[in-house]
Amino acid sequence: MTVSDAPPTMNDVAREAGVSVGTVSRYVNGIAVKDASRQRVEAAIRKLNYQVNSYARGLKTNKTYCAALILPVLTLPFFSLLAEEVTAALNRKGYRTVLMITNYDPEAERTCVSMVRQNKMDGIIALTYNPRTEFDPTIPLVSIDRRCEASRTCVSSDNYRGGEMAAERLLALGCKKLLFLRIGSDVSSEVDKRGIGFETACKTAGADYEMLILSDSETNEPFYRYLREHTADGVPDFDGIFCNTDRLALQIQRKLAELGVRVPEDVQLIGFDGVPDYLTGAPACSTIVQPVAQLAETAVNALLNADADAAPSLICLPVHFEAHGTTRE
Amino acid sequence: MTVSDAPPTMNDVAREAGVSVGTVSRYVNGIAVKDASRQRVEAAIRKLNYQVNSYARGLKTNKTYCAALILPVLTLPFFSLLAEEVTAALNRKGYRTVLMITNYDPEAERTCVSMVRQNKMDGIIALTYNPRTEFDPTIPLVSIDRRCEASRTCVSSDNYRGGEMAAERLLALGCKKLLFLRIGSDVSSEVDKRGIGFETACKTAGADYEMLILSDSETNEPFYRYLREHTADGVPDFDGIFCNTDRLALQIQRKLAELGVRVPEDVQLIGFDGVPDYLTGAPACSTIVQPVAQLAETAVNALLNADADAAPSLICLPVHFEAHGTTRE
Repeated sequence: MTVSDAPPTMNDVAREAGVSVGTVSRYVNGIAVKDASRQRVEAAIRKLNYQVNSYARGLKTNKTYCAALILPVLTLPFFSLLAEEVTAALNRKGYRTVLMITNYDPEAERTCVSMVRQNKMDGIIALTYNPRTEFDPTIPLVSIDRRCEASRTCVSSDNYRGGEMAAERLLALGCKKLLFLRIGSDVSSEVDKRGIGFETACKTAGADYEMLILSDSETNEPFYRYLREHTADGVPDFDGIFCNTDRLALQIQRKLAELGVRVPEDVQLIGFDGVPDYLTGAPACSTIVQPVAQLAETAVNALLNADADAAPSLICLPVHFEAHGTTRE
Repeated sequence: MTVSDAPPTMNDVAREAGVSVGTVSRYVNGIAVKDASRQRVEAAIRKLNYQVNSYARGLKTNKTYCAALILPVLTLPFFSLLAEEVTAALNRKGYRTVLMITNYDPEAERTCVSMVRQNKMDGIIALTYNPRTEFDPTIPLVSIDRRCEASRTCVSSDNYRGGEMAAERLLALGCKKLLFLRIGSDVSSEVDKRGIGFETACKTAGADYEMLILSDSETNEPFYRYLREHTADGVPDFDGIFCNTDRLALQIQRKLAELGVRVPEDVQLIGFDGVPDYLTGAPACSTIVQPVAQLAETAVNALLNADADAAPSLICLPVHFEAHGTTRE
């Protein structure tokens, strides 16, 4: 074992391994390199006892290769899949993901933002429910589903088109009286467009429809009351329902079963999300599928280009319909 | 606005805010402080334009206040709840969580470990499926469910007692022929004790039982074949099943329904995990409930004390049984 005066550098590792400095850099930043190269770099690192000092690197290049992912919760399937995909997409770019969960608490969102600033992270991907959270204008930010500030990029599914597709599909399947059901935040967001697209398509088709939107209800009870009051002897006066999420669609399906209403025979039901159910590996209802992996990939690419002059304000990705038993086809 | 020669220090902020330096430090590290103090610290930080440089702090104190959470996936309910709780528990201690997902790939686990080392993170909480992953002995590590190295602390539910409880409960509910079903990794882990505790309790009670354990099957098909072959005209020759996870229990319940076997009338079914179902907010089957919030809290505390002389090798937390419709009570 030799003792040298200066610690080994990335150049020394590259020379020892017989690869380019770029390859060593990619390896060190956690970006995939060819297996053969990786093995040689690892052997050279071991032989030279090379130590990357990311902190010194952070000071020097002003980059920490660390991005924050701010989500309200992790225990809804859309959020856990999104977190998994964002983590993978950041990792492919050599970035680590710092996970921050806010539980919908505006105070927690502010704490997250100040942690990002204090720790000089390189950027934020946020799905926030609080329009008043102030994001540091010097920190790159991409939002998902909710626009934070006009100058920032928001990435979302094409919610408007998804709403249209749901209405068009229910009508094409023979439904005569449509309902739209939504429960959730009254914070304005891209998600609102699911209902707006649906309503527009209903009007265009001259269809009979009703929009049931609860903003601050804690429970689905008002929906259940509506379903009961509009069902006589197991026969409902509606025959097509578009729910804002798959979760709500599945809850409504259970309630209809209790009322003796059959899905899809009596009522056809379409949800929104399309995240594979953990028991079956497929969505649990007919649904408008969000392209979660592409949302993550797009958000990460937008984040790394967030200082570009002409950053888009909104990037919408295409959705598609999939039948999974709650529609007749 | 004044121009000073030196940038403001934490002491300056404390003086300006009229609070202790400790309070400023807690705030800066993301630890909760009283609302009134927080507002004064934030006002002082704004007034002085105080900038925390965590990187300089990292170099100086050798702490980055950053811990890695390594999980195989995020899209199973137990894992997403665990990630949510670990993130919250680390946050309460002033630590950020770097999320790393391996997809069960040993290569990805090695990359995670080398990222932790290269970025000088303060520790690792890992649920790993690869016994050959080498963890840097200088980095604090706490594992969940799987013991990595004898000298490291593993935190898990009391799986053994949980297995016993499942057998005892099924027998107390009148079952005469018990089955244990498990599919999964053949990597030895704490999870194995679910089956061992179950078998021991069956033997102690002199009960009739069978252990069906699949290690490398991709599907549940061998279980389904067993169920079919042991059911004649809708009457099974078994009447109590303990499944290694709630997920498997719910899949088995669906298959039994297809065979015309009623749960819980003909067969009683107990799972393991007890994570609330995202549709109902309660576990979807009778189950042995893991104390996920306490697992997270305990793992974080063990991590922060991982350099203690007498770190325990295994910390098991108590589980309890909850009836949710798949047992007769």
